[in-house]
Amino acid sequence: MNIILLSGGSGKRLWPLSNDVRSKQFIKLFKDDKGEYESMVQRVYRQITAVDADATVTIATGKSQVSAIRNQLNDKVAVCVEPCRRDTFPAIALAVAYLHDEKGVGLQEAVAVCPVDPYVSNSYYESVKKLGTLVEQGDANITLMGIEPTYPSEKYGYIIPMTSDSVSAVKEFKEKPDVSTAERYIEQGALWNAGVFAFKLGYLLEKVHSMIDFTDYRDLYAKYDTLEKISFDYAVVEKETDIQVLRYEGAWSDVGTWNMMAEVMADATQGNVILDNTCSNTNVVNELDIPILCMGCKNMVIAASCDGILVSDKESSSYMKPYVEKLGEDVRFAEKSWGSYTVIDAQSTSLTIKVTLHAGNQMKYHSHERRDEVWTVVEGTGRTIVDGMEQVVRPGDVVTIAAGCKHTLIADTDMSVIEVQVGSEISQADKTVFPL
Amino acid sequence: MNIILLSGGSGKRLWPLSNDVRSKQFIKLFKDDKGEYESMVQRVYRQITAVDADATVTIATGKSQVSAIRNQLNDKVAVCVEPCRRDTFPAIALAVAYLHDEKGVGLQEAVAVCPVDPYVSNSYYESVKKLGTLVEQGDANITLMGIEPTYPSEKYGYIIPMTSDSVSAVKEFKEKPDVSTAERYIEQGALWNAGVFAFKLGYLLEKVHSMIDFTDYRDLYAKYDTLEKISFDYAVVEKETDIQVLRYEGAWSDVGTWNMMAEVMADATQGNVILDNTCSNTNVVNELDIPILCMGCKNMVIAASCDGILVSDKESSSYMKPYVEKLGEDVRFAEKSWGSYTVIDAQSTSLTIKVTLHAGNQMKYHSHERRDEVWTVVEGTGRTIVDGMEQVVRPGDVVTIAAGCKHTLIADTDMSVIEVQVGSEISQADKTVFPL
Repeated sequence: MNIILLSGGSGKRLWPLSNDVRSKQFIKLFKDDKGEYESMVQRVYRQITAVDADATVTIATGKSQVSAIRNQLNDKVAVCVEPCRRDTFPAIALAVAYLHDEKGVGLQEAVAVCPVDPYVSNSYYESVKKLGTLVEQGDANITLMGIEPTYPSEKYGYIIPMTSDSVSAVKEFKEKPDVSTAERYIEQGALWNAGVFAFKLGYLLEKVHSMIDFTDYRDLYAKYDTLEKISFDYAVVEKETDIQVLRYEGAWSDVGTWNMMAEVMADATQGNVILDNTCSNTNVVNELDIPILCMGCKNMVIAASCDGILVSDKESSSYMKPYVEKLGEDVRFAEKSWGSYTVIDAQSTSLTIKVTLHAGNQMKYHSHERRDEVWTVVEGTGRTIVDGMEQVVRPGDVVTIAAGCKHTLIADTDMSVIEVQVGSEISQADKTVFPL
Repeated sequence: MNIILLSGGSGKRLWPLSNDVRSKQFIKLFKDDKGEYESMVQRVYRQITAVDADATVTIATGKSQVSAIRNQLNDKVAVCVEPCRRDTFPAIALAVAYLHDEKGVGLQEAVAVCPVDPYVSNSYYESVKKLGTLVEQGDANITLMGIEPTYPSEKYGYIIPMTSDSVSAVKEFKEKPDVSTAERYIEQGALWNAGVFAFKLGYLLEKVHSMIDFTDYRDLYAKYDTLEKISFDYAVVEKETDIQVLRYEGAWSDVGTWNMMAEVMADATQGNVILDNTCSNTNVVNELDIPILCMGCKNMVIAASCDGILVSDKESSSYMKPYVEKLGEDVRFAEKSWGSYTVIDAQSTSLTIKVTLHAGNQMKYHSHERRDEVWTVVEGTGRTIVDGMEQVVRPGDVVTIAAGCKHTLIADTDMSVIEVQVGSEISQADKTVFPL
């Protein structure tokens, strides 16, 4: 089975754990079979391969997520990187061109597209696999998965099937309705459209060629920024007449709010947290290294990261977006393929960061024009290169890097370094990368 | 008027803002006449001098509070430092010996003793001044202030006066009662004993000499650790028969819980805080440099410092003590006479600290046996001395201090320094101080 996982943009709905560089699918609030914390993207990959050990998984995503994917899934998945963000039609077009031209997937093979962030049981991926089988049988050009609704939601689009059979032709698609309209749809047997569908690679590639003028994957990649922002539903699904839907009746959540996350996260509290015995129905996630003491909290969700602290009534947490947008874009934590960085102090002309590097990884060789940097190694051993001079470093060693000096750090073991940046202007833009 | 302010021990009842080294009287949650934040000790001093510009104020306290007092009140007050903590009788005995032998206060002068942490209006200090007048008139050996009770509290001792006059002889003292007993006391016209009383210096000094064998202040200081732990109420007040009480009818709070603090703090929120429009009756204090977003919070108090985060229903906050005691003794912030330090990262073999120094101040000349230190100057200019070598330092300058090296930092302007400590054992005990 070929699966394209669409790994969507930055989200603030799970702030302060999600931010502009850490999407919610990378937050580790679930647990795997061995009891280790895992993220949504790790969980989804584990579930897919549990159902189909031979599945080939390609994640279609933007540049900013590549580090986190590599960090969490290593080389187990292919990554089709969009050079810039368009909408789902260009992203899927690029991914099918990638599968055909770079991975050699045959035109008769079935391809399933799924979002990367539903919280479901393995039976969901059994249904995804069945979509592939239906496509290979050639019953329809596109086979969708329809989720049996559990309440008249205003947040999802609806699929109206012809019949109530397990597999049915599609009668109609409906945009996100209001509650009373949703109730009527559900009475007619409507299903939620959760963005899961399958097709033959050849079918979609032909469709894409009819809509975009390009030769192959590399050509499409090169002109990607010229493509129109348009959703796959709008560009393809809603125009296709030969289309059917497979009913999925299992549990499903898109975990789009803290309220939903609280329902499914592995532990009610995570991190250094104390609840007194009068707390009830309260979830707490603490990524900071200081304790959170909760007393008399009822129906609350509390989350703390180095970006900020949320203290919310569970229901209110669904209305977080406008408030989080006021908070601005300061990102104080980022997961990278080579490790992570965390801002631990910010002043007007300095920034202090804790940098961790995994053994065998290194930073890019780079320089800054308008700031000095000082590294103090606090854990692990490695090598620094500063203006071409290599030096072995151990805990307690200090490396001073004046503005303009080229520098990198190579970790021979897992390392932790305190970096102090000092300068009149401190910005991520002030960075020039050099070949080593 | 001579006033001895008893500045009591460490408190955790306002955790995480109060801790073992920062008592609640030093937290700046009030505002002065100019709208600047001030602490309880600053507020009390301001109120005393508003009522009596010539008052001489002596703070009786332990060593750990001297830095904070000097930082917040400079040299405006005298400080009588107990060499170790005993109870209130030894502390007051030492303070009266100090007033007589070090400050030359006459035996006929009145001395008033007050706790440092009540939240009151200026009229309270008018009453304190009146205590002094009553003492000078010689009506009784000890004149107490009795607070008109507002509810049958189990937390305070009660004074039963002979009459309901403004000034009355005392009939009896009662220990902290249960609620129904307190109700009976109040029906009899009882007053709260808030630990405020006045006497002639000569009266008390004689009393002290009759109970402790010592010559003068320095002798008493030298043998202070041999003194019995005993309260002033038990040792003196409850045994004195010639005693009267002055009724105080104004507002009074000992601000002993977050619930009480929320009633009187200057601003409902302090620091980087956003409340959504469904929050109500909620107070938030944020000392961290990351935002706190509160949504749908009702009747809550939320406080964050580098020691931890409290999220509590207001009423529940009164029962915090056993939970805070579980959290251990890690102190990550301390206010010093020379500035402050804040732990910004703690790992198993390293500790990173932000140190601020006020212009004109310096650290003690000291060394550590089992850790190296690295200073990176991020703000201000000053001088370092490392093993006798003096060096001017500016932002971006780095000073490395190997284990065993003597070192100090002298601030010529306000300075901010990031200090990374690296070693197999990092403890406050590993410090040797040298003369410079």
